[in-house]
Amino acid sequence: MPRTEAVRPPGASAVDAHEPDCLHLDPETRKDAVRRLKGARGHLEAVLRMLEDPSVYCVDVMKQLSAVQGALTKVNDKVLRSHVRDHVSTAILRGDTDQIVDELMEALKYRG
Amino acid sequence: MPRTEAVRPPGASAVDAHEPDCLHLDPETRKDAVRRLKGARGHLEAVLRMLEDPSVYCVDVMKQLSAVQGALTKVNDKVLRSHVRDHVSTAILRGDTDQIVDELMEALKYRG
Amino acid sequence: MPRTEAVRPPGASAVDAHEPDCLHLDPETRKDAVRRLKGARGHLEAVLRMLEDPSVYCVDVMKQLSAVQGALTKVNDKVLRSHVRDHVSTAILRGDTDQIVDELMEALKYRG
Amino acid sequence: MPRTEAVRPPGASAVDAHEPDCLHLDPETRKDAVRRLKGARGHLEAVLRMLEDPSVYCVDVMKQLSAVQGALTKVNDKVLRSHVRDHVSTAILRGDTDQIVDELMEALKYRG
Repeated sequence: MPRTEAVRPPGASAVDAHEPDCLHLDPETRKDAVRRLKGARGHLEAVLRMLEDPSVYCVDVMKQLSAVQGALTKVNDKVLRSHVRDHVSTAILRGDTDQIVDELMEALKYRG
Repeated sequence: MPRTEAVRPPGASAVDAHEPDCLHLDPETRKDAVRRLKGARGHLEAVLRMLEDPSVYCVDVMKQLSAVQGALTKVNDKVLRSHVRDHVSTAILRGDTDQIVDELMEALKYRG
Repeated sequence: MPRTEAVRPPGASAVDAHEPDCLHLDPETRKDAVRRLKGARGHLEAVLRMLEDPSVYCVDVMKQLSAVQGALTKVNDKVLRSHVRDHVSTAILRGDTDQIVDELMEALKYRG
Repeated sequence: MPRTEAVRPPGASAVDAHEPDCLHLDPETRKDAVRRLKGARGHLEAVLRMLEDPSVYCVDVMKQLSAVQGALTKVNDKVLRSHVRDHVSTAILRGDTDQIVDELMEALKYRG
């Protein structure tokens, strides 16, 4: 599934080769991420409602928060997979490998 | 900071000693959790707006999702600390240690 | 399973109540941890042998390292469970709740 | 830093393009990994010695195990960075993107 916007001739200068504006999240993953994140937002709102009850039990809050985090991790993984497939795997053609590697390692550092 | 609702005489039966309805999240932590979770919800909504832009860059989405996860982890840690301080540390008095340990390990399993 | 060394009268001063020398890892968990850690060390040595081969594939190294980490996490979880059951759940009797909570949160911060 | 063993003409068949035997961990990273893993093994042996003491404190074991895990995570991250730079970023040239992405996501799943 080649993405023309992500591919540049190997001769392109490494200095200005990486233009994030040209490395787009693929439309299908973007749509799926929106759908999942709306679900996670609904779940988060349910936790907020739980917390209105003065007799809420700590462990129940922790369980629900973990479920929300699981949903966000899933979205993050899907975006990551799409990024690796569409942009990291083609870095050699754009000549921006160093930058793409640094960005990826930074993004993984905080992965949930 | 003793919580009367969490303390029962050591002679209480272990069988029915653990009543989550009596182990409440302390009011201050609950209020703080609500405030922080509303912030996280706002951040999540900002990610949803980012995703409306077809030229959004994957790495930017991952960074923002990681920030939201960091906020949720912070809330989870505060609820955990409050739970350990108010309920786990007094399990011996209620006689529900086994149950409280199982619940805690389960809750930690999915910690972000 | 009460541990006499971990129990002190509720009237004990909170200042000097916490003496780690008296809060021992229970013998069964300690023995199990040794057995498992020896297994993990053997696994780590296998990774070191893998790395002697100049044609070793990165992904295979990552997989084996993850397996070692999984083994260490399992040991950490078992020690944690034992600590919560034997020492955290009785903090109210020793009067060292604040210290035991701080220590636990610190230990969990770096949990694999 | 091109690695000739990882680069194949774009016309190569996708079916047999991915030969892990040709995707080697770069020598410098490999050497560094060995040095660090030997250090981690020494640290693990120190934990094993700690556990010979019947009065060892749970929290001290957890702290030391976390330190070992931190060292393993560091090695894993360095191998990952090297893999992304040398092999993932050139997948488009070998035509094995799908395989390299699947492997990477699998390896990240268990990242400590």
